[in-house]
Amino acid sequence: MLFVPDEEMQVPIYDKLKSLNISLPQATPAAGAYTPFVRTGNLVFLAGHIAKKNGKPWIGQLGINLSVDEGKEAARAVAIDLMATLQSAVGDLNQIKRIVKLMVLVNSAPTFTEQHLVANGASELFGEVFGPNAPHARSAFGVAQIPLGACVEIDLIAEV
Amino acid sequence: MLFVPDEEMQVPIYDKLKSLNISLPQATPAAGAYTPFVRTGNLVFLAGHIAKKNGKPWIGQLGINLSVDEGKEAARAVAIDLMATLQSAVGDLNQIKRIVKLMVLVNSAPTFTEQHLVANGASELFGEVFGPNAPHARSAFGVAQIPLGACVEIDLIAEV
Amino acid sequence: MLFVPDEEMQVPIYDKLKSLNISLPQATPAAGAYTPFVRTGNLVFLAGHIAKKNGKPWIGQLGINLSVDEGKEAARAVAIDLMATLQSAVGDLNQIKRIVKLMVLVNSAPTFTEQHLVANGASELFGEVFGPNAPHARSAFGVAQIPLGACVEIDLIAEV
Repeated sequence: MLFVPDEEMQVPIYDKLKSLNISLPQATPAAGAYTPFVRTGNLVFLAGHIAKKNGKPWIGQLGINLSVDEGKEAARAVAIDLMATLQSAVGDLNQIKRIVKLMVLVNSAPTFTEQHLVANGASELFGEVFGPNAPHARSAFGVAQIPLGACVEIDLIAEV
Repeated sequence: MLFVPDEEMQVPIYDKLKSLNISLPQATPAAGAYTPFVRTGNLVFLAGHIAKKNGKPWIGQLGINLSVDEGKEAARAVAIDLMATLQSAVGDLNQIKRIVKLMVLVNSAPTFTEQHLVANGASELFGEVFGPNAPHARSAFGVAQIPLGACVEIDLIAEV
Repeated sequence: MLFVPDEEMQVPIYDKLKSLNISLPQATPAAGAYTPFVRTGNLVFLAGHIAKKNGKPWIGQLGINLSVDEGKEAARAVAIDLMATLQSAVGDLNQIKRIVKLMVLVNSAPTFTEQHLVANGASELFGEVFGPNAPHARSAFGVAQIPLGACVEIDLIAEV
């Protein structure tokens, strides 16, 4: 059941990225014992991607030293990296039939309860880029910590 | 591979719900950037559903201001909401071939270690309702916080 | 799409386990309301397995009373238990076509940021045992607590 995007459908995604002034970074290569994505059947599972700023882990904890707006911006940055990985997984983002599921981990003080607003930074960008194929199931919650102290980590399942 | 429930199989689920005195609420509609469920192939992925009481977030933290029994009751309430969403996803709960996986997040003090007992509130209700199709793989653990301060959040994968 | 391992492929896995001096324990039986694994289509979903030492929960929290090396050893122990469950799920580990996804939960103090190093204990063992079929997508993060106070919990998706 190969998804064959037609010319008309291929235009919007990369045009949309351009109009948003987003250029996808090089996807992170496999680091040691695990890999950024695995495809099985029509599903692509992406590894948890941590938020980065200027190429370094975006360190911080919501409710302590980062605002909701900063967290949301960090989640948006992760979404861009996830799209870069998705592109390296499937070759062409127009092959993505659906964003299926997001798990959004927010590095949270025990008193911070707006993980959903932080997660919107990723969900809304996917909405802008993938349009009707973007709406996804999502779990967002506060974790005690994230590798390297990053403020947000997101993993994703997509359908090709 | 469409699953066609026959008459005999269709009776038990809704009869069971009735005998448990459970009426499914209206499923929560899509809220902004994400959606309560996505179906891909034979799998349905449900978004994380937070515990509610009288229509409002069921706020609290296990090990601080909620007992195991209360947490278990909250998990059971989430399971009811998950069934409502499942029904809106597939039209008829008898179409559910298997509850595949639950992720049960328990809003936990760093000293609370009985997340599995809280999670049983959902698992046991699924067992009562779905019988032989209910046993599922499950991960239960303690998180630092949950959106809106809810005490429990659960997401789910089901096979249609 | 049954995966039929040939003779040559069947040898390595159990030979590799033997050369690593690993004998798989009895898989944990279903405990009450949930089950150690569910197979749906070509995917097997494994429940979260907690770390054990001498048959009891391996208790501790990274950043408080366990070192990274101990955490890594605990994650490796979980990987062995996961392989035992995988074997009971598919009968023969050579039927595993791919380790698809790991979710590695590390019982973490709010200051511990090396969950990825802990997770390597599992990922690297899978690499040694499954070779080219081992590289998996992975999410590792710090949680507030884990059932019974265990230091690590891991769940897994594999392709048969």
